[in-house]
Amino acid sequence: MHILVTNDDGILAPGIKALAEALRPLGEVEVVAPDTGQSGAGHAVTFLTPLICERISLRGEFFGWSVAGSPADCVKLGVRELCRRRPDLVVSGINAGANRGVDVIYSGTVAAAVEAAFIGIPSLAISLASRGGFDFERAGQWARRIVGRALELGIAPGTVLNVNLPPLDRGEPQGVRVVRQSTAPWTDVYDRREDPRGRSYFWLADSGERDASREPDTDLGALRAGFVTITPLQYDLTEYRRLRWLERHWNEEGAP
Amino acid sequence: MHILVTNDDGILAPGIKALAEALRPLGEVEVVAPDTGQSGAGHAVTFLTPLICERISLRGEFFGWSVAGSPADCVKLGVRELCRRRPDLVVSGINAGANRGVDVIYSGTVAAAVEAAFIGIPSLAISLASRGGFDFERAGQWARRIVGRALELGIAPGTVLNVNLPPLDRGEPQGVRVVRQSTAPWTDVYDRREDPRGRSYFWLADSGERDASREPDTDLGALRAGFVTITPLQYDLTEYRRLRWLERHWNEEGAP
Repeated sequence: MHILVTNDDGILAPGIKALAEALRPLGEVEVVAPDTGQSGAGHAVTFLTPLICERISLRGEFFGWSVAGSPADCVKLGVRELCRRRPDLVVSGINAGANRGVDVIYSGTVAAAVEAAFIGIPSLAISLASRGGFDFERAGQWARRIVGRALELGIAPGTVLNVNLPPLDRGEPQGVRVVRQSTAPWTDVYDRREDPRGRSYFWLADSGERDASREPDTDLGALRAGFVTITPLQYDLTEYRRLRWLERHWNEEGAP
Repeated sequence: MHILVTNDDGILAPGIKALAEALRPLGEVEVVAPDTGQSGAGHAVTFLTPLICERISLRGEFFGWSVAGSPADCVKLGVRELCRRRPDLVVSGINAGANRGVDVIYSGTVAAAVEAAFIGIPSLAISLASRGGFDFERAGQWARRIVGRALELGIAPGTVLNVNLPPLDRGEPQGVRVVRQSTAPWTDVYDRREDPRGRSYFWLADSGERDASREPDTDLGALRAGFVTITPLQYDLTEYRRLRWLERHWNEEGAP
């Protein structure tokens, strides 16, 4: 088992170190990760500029490759160029902060996993919610357990499992739940400020709270209730119900 | 009808000017767009740094707001702060280049439309394929026609229509087709080069050709056959078939 580990918090973040160490008993682990934090990077890819890569050592030992690019770039480049052989599995994380609901669309952690799925490699994205400190060591143990169980069950190419761990700094999770992604919206609030020359600028100040009370069967609801959540994701974004309706009303053959 | 127009090629790109002008007969148009090109930005959002905005005039007349951020930032900030009133519709484009198949996940043009859907505003992303020059004036006429038809049919909040126009520089499209998103993968090839100090770096050189011959019912296939394609997109990424299977095999109640 050859495992590519990446993240969106950057190669020096504590979460990726904990993840790489936790997964070593499962196979050969290679790390390819962004050189800096890429939170909110979404599924960005770099093609207009080059990707500078560096070998990163920790305490004198080779840890992995840093890439001056996005999490998706790291997976592309890792699989095509940097890894010693083609990975059987890509695991992204452990992200400092949950990625549930519509966060999955903003998340670089999830984008890396989706990129792997494009290339035909099964993947997991692992994120840790917290109310205080991040206990990455225990999160790593959970990551190994979840990845191990996924391998036992069989994780087909193209599969993306989005995993969220509840805060672990106040006890054990309530269990593990397979749940759908919430679509509850954020309510973004911007701070309007003035620069030293009197011109307005804006800063995303708060995204409010999303109401999970009516959707205990989602990642948002189950995570808030203290469960580890697992949500399989797809990258066919077609909305099929609307597609069928539009097909009946809109198809036009021949030039207008 | 109040329409927010944005893009990912930047506020000075010819495609957004053509789009804004083409849509004026349909309602009041406001433009909020990135200050620079954001191709491949995906669904990036900016929260760690401020968003600098500027009023952009063309030939002495106010054209719109530029934002030093991503396409998704422009929609968030446009709706919450910059637009004179809440838009009824968001239209993103006209992108210089098609956004079909898995491109939709990398595309800033599409991300802007999806962001609008999050906030409850119906949206369209419009992209123009080209084999030579981009005829944005004719693309604008097509955009008006497509947006007008969408409004006639009724476009509900949460709807995202991803529209691709075939190259218009060699004649009229074959017609309009409502089609699903292709999931055919790219085969990325990186150029490995050496920097002036002898260190390796990489540059995404080619993403190959995707085989559309076996999927005429997708955006990839229908666009290649010369049709205008329309694909409704969703932002619930849950893969429900795998979800049902995993629910039976993985749910665990109680701490392990």
